[in-house]
Amino acid sequence: MDKSLEPVAGGGLLDRRLFLKRGLMFSTATAVSPQVLAKFKSFDSSLPSWMLKPGEPFSNYGQPSEHENKTIRWTMGNSMAPGNGVSWTPLHDLEGTITPNGLHFERHHNGVPQIDPAKHQLVIHGLVNNPLMFSIENLLRYPMRSMFCFVECGGNSNAGWRSKPIQTQVGYFHGMASCSEWTGIPLYVLLEEAGIKASAKWLIAEGADAAAMNISIPLDKALDDCIVALYQNGERIRPENGYPLRLVVPGWEGVVNVKWLRRLHLTTQPSMTRNETSKYTELLPSGKARQFTFIMDAKSVITNPSLGYKMAKPGLYQVTGLAWSGRGKIAKVEVSADGGNIWAEAELQKPVMAKCFTRFRIPWQWQGNQVVIKSRATDETGYQQPEREELIKQRGQNGYFHYNAVVSWKISADGAISHVYA
Amino acid sequence: MDKSLEPVAGGGLLDRRLFLKRGLMFSTATAVSPQVLAKFKSFDSSLPSWMLKPGEPFSNYGQPSEHENKTIRWTMGNSMAPGNGVSWTPLHDLEGTITPNGLHFERHHNGVPQIDPAKHQLVIHGLVNNPLMFSIENLLRYPMRSMFCFVECGGNSNAGWRSKPIQTQVGYFHGMASCSEWTGIPLYVLLEEAGIKASAKWLIAEGADAAAMNISIPLDKALDDCIVALYQNGERIRPENGYPLRLVVPGWEGVVNVKWLRRLHLTTQPSMTRNETSKYTELLPSGKARQFTFIMDAKSVITNPSLGYKMAKPGLYQVTGLAWSGRGKIAKVEVSADGGNIWAEAELQKPVMAKCFTRFRIPWQWQGNQVVIKSRATDETGYQQPEREELIKQRGQNGYFHYNAVVSWKISADGAISHVYA
Repeated sequence: MDKSLEPVAGGGLLDRRLFLKRGLMFSTATAVSPQVLAKFKSFDSSLPSWMLKPGEPFSNYGQPSEHENKTIRWTMGNSMAPGNGVSWTPLHDLEGTITPNGLHFERHHNGVPQIDPAKHQLVIHGLVNNPLMFSIENLLRYPMRSMFCFVECGGNSNAGWRSKPIQTQVGYFHGMASCSEWTGIPLYVLLEEAGIKASAKWLIAEGADAAAMNISIPLDKALDDCIVALYQNGERIRPENGYPLRLVVPGWEGVVNVKWLRRLHLTTQPSMTRNETSKYTELLPSGKARQFTFIMDAKSVITNPSLGYKMAKPGLYQVTGLAWSGRGKIAKVEVSADGGNIWAEAELQKPVMAKCFTRFRIPWQWQGNQVVIKSRATDETGYQQPEREELIKQRGQNGYFHYNAVVSWKISADGAISHVYA
Repeated sequence: MDKSLEPVAGGGLLDRRLFLKRGLMFSTATAVSPQVLAKFKSFDSSLPSWMLKPGEPFSNYGQPSEHENKTIRWTMGNSMAPGNGVSWTPLHDLEGTITPNGLHFERHHNGVPQIDPAKHQLVIHGLVNNPLMFSIENLLRYPMRSMFCFVECGGNSNAGWRSKPIQTQVGYFHGMASCSEWTGIPLYVLLEEAGIKASAKWLIAEGADAAAMNISIPLDKALDDCIVALYQNGERIRPENGYPLRLVVPGWEGVVNVKWLRRLHLTTQPSMTRNETSKYTELLPSGKARQFTFIMDAKSVITNPSLGYKMAKPGLYQVTGLAWSGRGKIAKVEVSADGGNIWAEAELQKPVMAKCFTRFRIPWQWQGNQVVIKSRATDETGYQQPEREELIKQRGQNGYFHYNAVVSWKISADGAISHVYA
């Protein structure tokens, strides 16, 4: 047997460097006879219809193929208040690490405001020496920086708290997380131009939506790596992502990444808004409550194979998925194909960036038997994604936010895939 | 005078680390009086209209704001053959390094074929042991890798060969270059599954458009870092970028990155197709011709300020632009604000990736006088982007392809910006 095809872990996981080896056989292709080849090469009426006539014209702004019209955000609004809801990024249909802008997840409280950028203002006030008002035209003159980072709703993956494993595709379970190259003005530049008073410790950020969504953010974080973002993946931010501008607070729960930003109010204390008291606060088994749990802990999920796919036949596969951590870079992702007994380290897509989606991949020889596959992320602080049992022990049964346990997929002998707690 | 505001180069260029310093004043904002602030904070009918009613609903696939409808690809078709032409990425409107998929440049010979992925096949034949045919369904089971890289047409920036400087925005001059995260199957995996014969030295790649566009590629490059790409910036490739699959040949001229890939024919010699003889071959002053000039040399351009913008008033600005090299990573970008006498090194956006757009930025104190600003890229091989005079000396007046000279913008005292050869 070829040494490199020896499993490195249970269930048939192979060395992550296997795909660097030459001459692997996936054997999914069809052999081509000389007759079929001759026909394929001949420029006659047997060509596919799209080669027999001129194609479609150039376009000012392109759109996906109509054959990909199932790759969409799945939306869920409140029937009593349609602007209050979410839409999920279809992570199960995507590859690489970037989320295209049209598929970035949404979480709105009262719909997407249609803001005229010529009439929008950002005001900085409160504990500052000089309250300031900025137009978008002003802001576009400021120095910018760019960073690749994820934005994840604090409520992402919360179906994991249910007593029975939800049977839904990855995106509709974990897709309130998306990853973009954000470009904007370092927040400290604007705050310092207003002149921060020594007594200022927090700021309250408010959006220009009809909910005037607001939340408190510690000043230390605001002065660290936050930006007032104007661009997403190269172009100006889309309306549903905060056009004309939003806060990006790397690694922290989505709710603090305030969209349609209109006001920054510097204060001595947090303001105990709805989104830091009634929501985003959770009762623990001890009787105490978690509050201001801003940082998104390390998480990972296998996106392929996953529920919704079906294994074709036994053979060589690539297991792939996404990992991310609000604390910094992903240090390693381990994959198990025997329900968690033995783990093998996956290859990480380079460059690995802090607080950013990291794609992992590992080869796997599926023997055609029933197995449970799962992934486990560790970040550069040493924090390791917990098993579900451990998370429940720490956080109890009242959890709603910040679910980040290991996700398990059961592959049945017939190739069907389901979500299991295992 | 604050030491950090001392110019590091002529024309007012400042140290690239200046923006890391706290307390800079851009002074474009407006002071806010208590009366204005009170009004801004009050939730009454004086709020902007979009805060007074629920916003727009969730959407399955988002689109840019209608206020950004000038950020488009500028298209130029041949009136006799509308599918033969180009569209440009509006680089002057973009920030960061990613090109959103809807704005990736286009170069088609006979329009955009509307391919049904269920009926598309890729065939590998010629000097192989086993000619193979792959369906898209087959290919989606193969191992993938992702890379951020640019694709640039060999004819990009060719207006630079004209005797007078073209007065057009950056995108319509240099925008036949775009940058994406591409994901696909390493080309060597597919070729080796077919079994490469020792005599094979080239492959001819053919597309499934109505032009059956084809071109020869050396096998060494095919086995190096090329991929058969299925995904662009996370989602499946758009029709105008090769749906359902294209070659990505990192760092090499766009024409070899064959879209709608249907056939790879392994041969001993290049096939002398139209696109390697009649086109992409150029007469030199020596009387010899350049052919197979695949690699895109290092280039850079300042995108802001640039033609189409107008300087508001003297003060502190950020000069920013893009640099890239088909030979590897950008090592440094220097900027001059005195027509090229003294150069200062710009800050490069991290992480710098090989064969990928690299965003550069440097602070600049514009004094309100007439100046010429320009940028010059050096890549990790030590290759330095030439001044125009030098390029013309090497390549003569018959140039059409591979124009990569330094680009100069004249800022007039009134703030107007024009393109100059200087």
